[in-house]
Amino acid sequence: MADLDDVLRCNTLFYEAFNQRDMTLMESVWMHDGRVRCVHPGWGILEGWEEVRASFEKILGSGLAVIEVSDVEPFVADGEPMAWVTCIEEISYNLEGNIITARAQATNIFEKEGGRWLMVHHHASAVPVQLVSEEVLQ
Amino acid sequence: MADLDDVLRCNTLFYEAFNQRDMTLMESVWMHDGRVRCVHPGWGILEGWEEVRASFEKILGSGLAVIEVSDVEPFVADGEPMAWVTCIEEISYNLEGNIITARAQATNIFEKEGGRWLMVHHHASAVPVQLVSEEVLQ
Repeated sequence: MADLDDVLRCNTLFYEAFNQRDMTLMESVWMHDGRVRCVHPGWGILEGWEEVRASFEKILGSGLAVIEVSDVEPFVADGEPMAWVTCIEEISYNLEGNIITARAQATNIFEKEGGRWLMVHHHASAVPVQLVSEEVLQ
Repeated sequence: MADLDDVLRCNTLFYEAFNQRDMTLMESVWMHDGRVRCVHPGWGILEGWEEVRASFEKILGSGLAVIEVSDVEPFVADGEPMAWVTCIEEISYNLEGNIITARAQATNIFEKEGGRWLMVHHHASAVPVQLVSEEVLQ
């Protein structure tokens, strides 16, 4: 399952780029295409690589957040050129000396281009502390 | 672009099932598989068709919400067995006689199985009234 390993590696590199504030690595993870989309928690959807790149320059430049990833689940069919990964992001902020942690749910979509897997879509959204599902699905 | 039309039709049927509280139609839209995932706004991720089906039974049974869809963008490569759609959901609730509207961003992923497109992943998250991106990307 070479594709499985490569997709998971691309997913890992995305968060490494984030945590190391490495814009060059972040650029290498994404497809540079007008079709890419990105939803940061609390943001509207960003359309095309230029908008996505600008958002990461702002976010990495602010230098405030670190993401710890868990519950990584890959959805990869060997030989297919598209795949996606779901994971939980534990986002820690240093806000005026206090560490604040927020949890987000991410859906990351990847496409294989020229033998390389690249991120084409990132959708992350805040997970409330009290889940609606815990109230409704009881 | 038969695939494009079919993917968009599946996306439309998902929201028709929701608005018409038609559980049979909703069941026909989704893949019935342990791999399916669903994130409703404010919920934790649901895993597998049984959990997803139960959530829609609860939601459609409550009979409170109607979704108006806009900004529908399909990402479909003809001949590939996977595609996704992004769209905006305007969700209207009748809360004790008052109509309340919320906006969500959706990422919907589809797979083709036996010649039919089926939903395998739905990730919807609330869009705040004041977008973070409007503050940061200025």
